[in-house]
Amino acid sequence: MEKNYSEKLPQGFSLATVGAGFKYQNRPDLALTFSSTPAACAGVFTTNIFQAAPVLIARDNLKKSSTVRAILVNAGQANACTGDKGIANCLKTLEIAADKLQIDYREILPASTGVIGDHLKMHLFEKNISLLVENLGRSKGEDAARAIMTTDTFPKTAQTEVELEKGKVRFWGMAKGAGMICPNMSTMLGFILTDLKVNRLCWQELIAQAVDQSFNALTIDGDTSTNDCVLAMANGESGVESSGQKDIQMLEGALNKICSDLSYQIVKDAEGGTKVLQVCVQGAADKAQAKLAASTVGNSPLVKTAMYGQDPNWGRIIAALGRSGAEFDPNKVKVSLAGVEIFSFGHPVDMDRDTVFASLLKDSDIKIEIDLGKGSGSFRLLASDFTEEYIKINAHYRT
Amino acid sequence: MEKNYSEKLPQGFSLATVGAGFKYQNRPDLALTFSSTPAACAGVFTTNIFQAAPVLIARDNLKKSSTVRAILVNAGQANACTGDKGIANCLKTLEIAADKLQIDYREILPASTGVIGDHLKMHLFEKNISLLVENLGRSKGEDAARAIMTTDTFPKTAQTEVELEKGKVRFWGMAKGAGMICPNMSTMLGFILTDLKVNRLCWQELIAQAVDQSFNALTIDGDTSTNDCVLAMANGESGVESSGQKDIQMLEGALNKICSDLSYQIVKDAEGGTKVLQVCVQGAADKAQAKLAASTVGNSPLVKTAMYGQDPNWGRIIAALGRSGAEFDPNKVKVSLAGVEIFSFGHPVDMDRDTVFASLLKDSDIKIEIDLGKGSGSFRLLASDFTEEYIKINAHYRT
Repeated sequence: MEKNYSEKLPQGFSLATVGAGFKYQNRPDLALTFSSTPAACAGVFTTNIFQAAPVLIARDNLKKSSTVRAILVNAGQANACTGDKGIANCLKTLEIAADKLQIDYREILPASTGVIGDHLKMHLFEKNISLLVENLGRSKGEDAARAIMTTDTFPKTAQTEVELEKGKVRFWGMAKGAGMICPNMSTMLGFILTDLKVNRLCWQELIAQAVDQSFNALTIDGDTSTNDCVLAMANGESGVESSGQKDIQMLEGALNKICSDLSYQIVKDAEGGTKVLQVCVQGAADKAQAKLAASTVGNSPLVKTAMYGQDPNWGRIIAALGRSGAEFDPNKVKVSLAGVEIFSFGHPVDMDRDTVFASLLKDSDIKIEIDLGKGSGSFRLLASDFTEEYIKINAHYRT
Repeated sequence: MEKNYSEKLPQGFSLATVGAGFKYQNRPDLALTFSSTPAACAGVFTTNIFQAAPVLIARDNLKKSSTVRAILVNAGQANACTGDKGIANCLKTLEIAADKLQIDYREILPASTGVIGDHLKMHLFEKNISLLVENLGRSKGEDAARAIMTTDTFPKTAQTEVELEKGKVRFWGMAKGAGMICPNMSTMLGFILTDLKVNRLCWQELIAQAVDQSFNALTIDGDTSTNDCVLAMANGESGVESSGQKDIQMLEGALNKICSDLSYQIVKDAEGGTKVLQVCVQGAADKAQAKLAASTVGNSPLVKTAMYGQDPNWGRIIAALGRSGAEFDPNKVKVSLAGVEIFSFGHPVDMDRDTVFASLLKDSDIKIEIDLGKGSGSFRLLASDFTEEYIKINAHYRT
């Protein structure tokens, strides 16, 4: 994915990367985000019962410290299911980094991505931390986005700026994730930076609603990882704070834009994926039922393989809806594929499917629209297709 | 799969097949099972909201008629989501067959498997029904099992006999299904015949419990079809009925044997599958939670691809358990793979995984044992792995 913008980080942030060699050679795999002033920080974390050491510690630090100065991310070892030693290792990395940065370790939030169960290679961390801190300001956003990749094939960044009543503020974000992805996140890491001046509670609320509509509304394979998180720092360096309802709406819009952009890139980069499926459910009893229906369709291996095969096999969409658990009358259901109504009120629409869809399903973006004809609940989910390449990547990832 | 037995149908049953050409050429695709005397019949049907015409009519006939004489099955068109015309077509096949067999149409149960949304090719049915009825008694069980196949690669049959207090009774069964398979069944058709003398209520109960532990405890891709059913006829031709608790246990054992055997064959024949995964969960709060945990692990594309890749990547099993929704303390969980404990009380077991598992994971049958350390709920699920071949088959099935 080519970026068609010149990168502008929000004021007061600097980035650093280094190739520590945790797992990958000849590429950066350790990234540091640093704010020159204390920032309000919001966090949204995985709902998996097994939570990786960096997730537990990031949550804890957010409780202990009202502001945050840095985010430290490594790729290669997830430091998940690593017990007390994993916790001790993670804390030690923060202490070492804090010492170099001359801040409190509780002002640093850790994140890790990689193989579950492997311990962090501490000697490589210790060997590279000085260089990492020295590098602050030398790395571009795209470098940092590249350093946090695992099976990703391209770095994922997004930015925007908004003109509030009192002035301009910038937003920048990066994310990684290309598999083990599902609503409620997964080996999905997202980082948002802004120079907006905002109090912590309001910031957490803004981030939570943006994540809900973006990172929590995508699926690649239905799996949710032990390491997911979205961390968002607002350091106030612009001096601009929101005033009034219109500003809040502008901020919501900017965050939705960044998060949706990054989410789209994640699904676009789905392991082995060739298509982004947009599953839009409306007419459900409520939003939860709409999400249930959309998730069942978006996670169905048969729907995903049909879309990969460019096969207008609406029967698989119908079969997935029917087992989703969402309540509806089968005779009121309508389904459109790539903009063409193919199933209407319990019956297939009479047409020569192969002719109608021959070119439509070649697109890399396919819209599946479902109306359950029951209520006003709606949900939009991004999903990937399933390909031979997905199998290859995941059958042989660890070894 | 080679059969190592000489086939013995229960007394009073005869089978017929014909190649009608509904979809497949040069093979039978229409099968008739006929009992010389009225049989008690039990049925278990798909829970999908969209139910195919033959499912709706089979349910209805079971309500209208206390006994059943025949089962009529076609492969090629599923006659699902085909509206009123689908219902009319299905009823017409029964009326034509009933006329030839000189029985009431409500004594025939229909079943269909194939592409959803396609109408039954009535002219082919009409053209071939006389020959089908003439063929009664000329087909072996394996022929019938072959006639109901779609993407199956081998016919699935099983048989057993038991010596009850008052004499010997025989059981024979056949099944089809190789994809769109999930707990609560799927394009899974199963047919059980016996010459046991039994009343309908007792028979339904015996079948329901056997199905629950077998056909409802397997998953290939998590999808449940619109056409699933298990139909079971008991015609009493042996003259033997059960007397006492010991006989009931023998009958339960025989039915579990038949249903488990057929279920295993279905997973063995999973589309593109190379392995049968046996996911055994114990120590759950209750059976429902055990099933939830087992299903999440057995349906996880990441677990399925790891097993295909012979990769002892227990982290994916743990990640699936953690998002399953089952309640447990992560520090009490134990996981064994192929008989080797690999995760214990929240920690990976220290070992050289690649050496330990090098040959173990080459087996075509892999056991995943999970102890959640919470209660006494347990569940055993059969699952397939995910391969490039699965993708190929399902990306290009319809066209």
